[in-house]
Amino acid sequence: MLNLPAVPRSSGFQTEQTAFVASVAEKLPEFLASQRDILKEVSPDALALLDSIGDLVLGGKRLRALMCYWGWRGAGGAAGAPEIIAAGTALEFFQAAALIHDDIIDRSETRRGAPSVHRRFSNLHSGNGWSLDPERFGEAAGILAGDLCLSYSEEMLASAGPRAAFGTPARNVFNRMRTEVMAGQYLDILEEVSGAQKDPASAVARAQTILRYKSAKYSSEHPLVLGGALAGAPQSLLDSYSAFALPLGEAFQIRDDVLGVFGDPKITGKPAGDDLREGKRTVLVGFALNAPPAEAALLARQLGNPDLDPEGIEALRGIIIGSGALASTEALIAKLSATALDALARMNIEPLARTALTALAKMVIQRSI
Amino acid sequence: MLNLPAVPRSSGFQTEQTAFVASVAEKLPEFLASQRDILKEVSPDALALLDSIGDLVLGGKRLRALMCYWGWRGAGGAAGAPEIIAAGTALEFFQAAALIHDDIIDRSETRRGAPSVHRRFSNLHSGNGWSLDPERFGEAAGILAGDLCLSYSEEMLASAGPRAAFGTPARNVFNRMRTEVMAGQYLDILEEVSGAQKDPASAVARAQTILRYKSAKYSSEHPLVLGGALAGAPQSLLDSYSAFALPLGEAFQIRDDVLGVFGDPKITGKPAGDDLREGKRTVLVGFALNAPPAEAALLARQLGNPDLDPEGIEALRGIIIGSGALASTEALIAKLSATALDALARMNIEPLARTALTALAKMVIQRSI
Repeated sequence: MLNLPAVPRSSGFQTEQTAFVASVAEKLPEFLASQRDILKEVSPDALALLDSIGDLVLGGKRLRALMCYWGWRGAGGAAGAPEIIAAGTALEFFQAAALIHDDIIDRSETRRGAPSVHRRFSNLHSGNGWSLDPERFGEAAGILAGDLCLSYSEEMLASAGPRAAFGTPARNVFNRMRTEVMAGQYLDILEEVSGAQKDPASAVARAQTILRYKSAKYSSEHPLVLGGALAGAPQSLLDSYSAFALPLGEAFQIRDDVLGVFGDPKITGKPAGDDLREGKRTVLVGFALNAPPAEAALLARQLGNPDLDPEGIEALRGIIIGSGALASTEALIAKLSATALDALARMNIEPLARTALTALAKMVIQRSI
Repeated sequence: MLNLPAVPRSSGFQTEQTAFVASVAEKLPEFLASQRDILKEVSPDALALLDSIGDLVLGGKRLRALMCYWGWRGAGGAAGAPEIIAAGTALEFFQAAALIHDDIIDRSETRRGAPSVHRRFSNLHSGNGWSLDPERFGEAAGILAGDLCLSYSEEMLASAGPRAAFGTPARNVFNRMRTEVMAGQYLDILEEVSGAQKDPASAVARAQTILRYKSAKYSSEHPLVLGGALAGAPQSLLDSYSAFALPLGEAFQIRDDVLGVFGDPKITGKPAGDDLREGKRTVLVGFALNAPPAEAALLARQLGNPDLDPEGIEALRGIIIGSGALASTEALIAKLSATALDALARMNIEPLARTALTALAKMVIQRSI
């Protein structure tokens, strides 16, 4: 069991954090309202795009915005400054854009407890009795809503001022984040269709590359570094931010993969073992694909079988445990978490930011965010 | 017949224009090469995204880049300056991004004589014998390639320097262009599924709104204004750019719609009357939907019938001609062209730019570009 550092009580960071989250929650609809007139001038019908984005960004845990905020504060940025509210809001728009397109790619029906954006538009189609295919209309509208949201994230970041201008460290982080997420998502869909043909010996490495670029960097590392860069942090501090936030983000994502196979449906909100039915080629599965030949072959054959019943799930879980894959995965999570916490302990930052990042790290590692 | 102004021979603009087009053609792969290392670091597999963009941007008529260039030159910008090469290249990336996503939405198989980007990826899937559905893989990869290309267009524009920075007139035009294109595309898919339920009396107005935002503004008006704004043009000049380029862009697009019904397949490259089979609700069709009841009802019923044979096409063409819809559409094109040329004649710009814009306008009106 990992020894998590204590977070001092009444350290004051929660009040500040709550105020920041509230500012981002105000800024999102404020920006969308400023865009309303442009769309209305095109046609009131086009407002449906804006509304679909607006409802999506209302939700979310603001994890990326928070990482960005404490990266800023840790580097000496002022509490509640407009620049960092703009940057945090930009990350929320970027996250929303990625989710909108990801849900089309994954054919996900729901997001944050409501219909996903493309499903919302296919419902609009069906509800109005329009002609042609509701699914196609939903996907097309979802592609456009995601594009618009991606543009909004960019406009919002630019509004953070000169430190987010062309060629600055902050802008470079943001650009790299976008490119890496898209590349990571591509590797994910590629692994889904071609992973079975590839060498099982490199399955863990491939899965780790995907989660690093698709999730860990943009959920944890890039937001923290972006905040620091906006505050003018030296490269040495940005490097120590990376040393902390990248393994933290990876630990979070690999834990997610364990929960996708072994998690309690009451907590995960998904049927038990659903990742096995979906055929996700995670780090956990990657380890198990290196089980003894008979077991590995059974797993490879059953992975992605949508008709797997509880007994079938139980059999695959048995292989994952028996082969030592679960233990290897848990060891990797523990190692990544320890690396992150170690980097945090050695980080030279403002005490309040250290406390806040410690609390965030605890929540991430314990999966309570 | 419209009286087109004469373009002086050996005016020198062609040499300059050719040099600019060559600079853009160099800049596109140069930027992509600079992105290659970032993607390669993620994984060499991710380079497929870059290659799909690279092959697409090789083609194209560079119409938007040229409008941007002469907008710049007309406002006193220096010949062949790096800023305007960056802006023209950004427009080409934006155009490519819009085409990639539009081809997914329209299920288009080809683009610029080669497989469309999503088709390219579904071919990659089939060619490698990967698992699951090649179509789904192709669409997913196409969504991601379009997102990446959209990000590249933004990065490229930002590289144009301080005049493209946050809050500048040029940046505001670029942002508005993005938003309006996405809104226009949404109106287009909306009309496709819901147009039949709406009032035929407003069908022409709806069709004109769609082509204005989906095509005319971003192909003609916004590029010209962007170039002018980058050169620091006063608002009065930008307004006269709009007065010229918006009707020009609309005339071009409405001509396209006429060709989609009456064009020679040898020239359009599409089967005769294909727009009727696809059920496109264009300005031309909008006029015809206001034919006498029996004819209008027949047109409404047959529009979008994929099995329309040559006789069926001929019958609908008869309605379009007999109802006066074709004549009304031609009159509208003539009026828009005349408005554009009149605005150009009254424009206060550098003589070389005037000559170049006159030549561009002629090519656009005569559909030789």
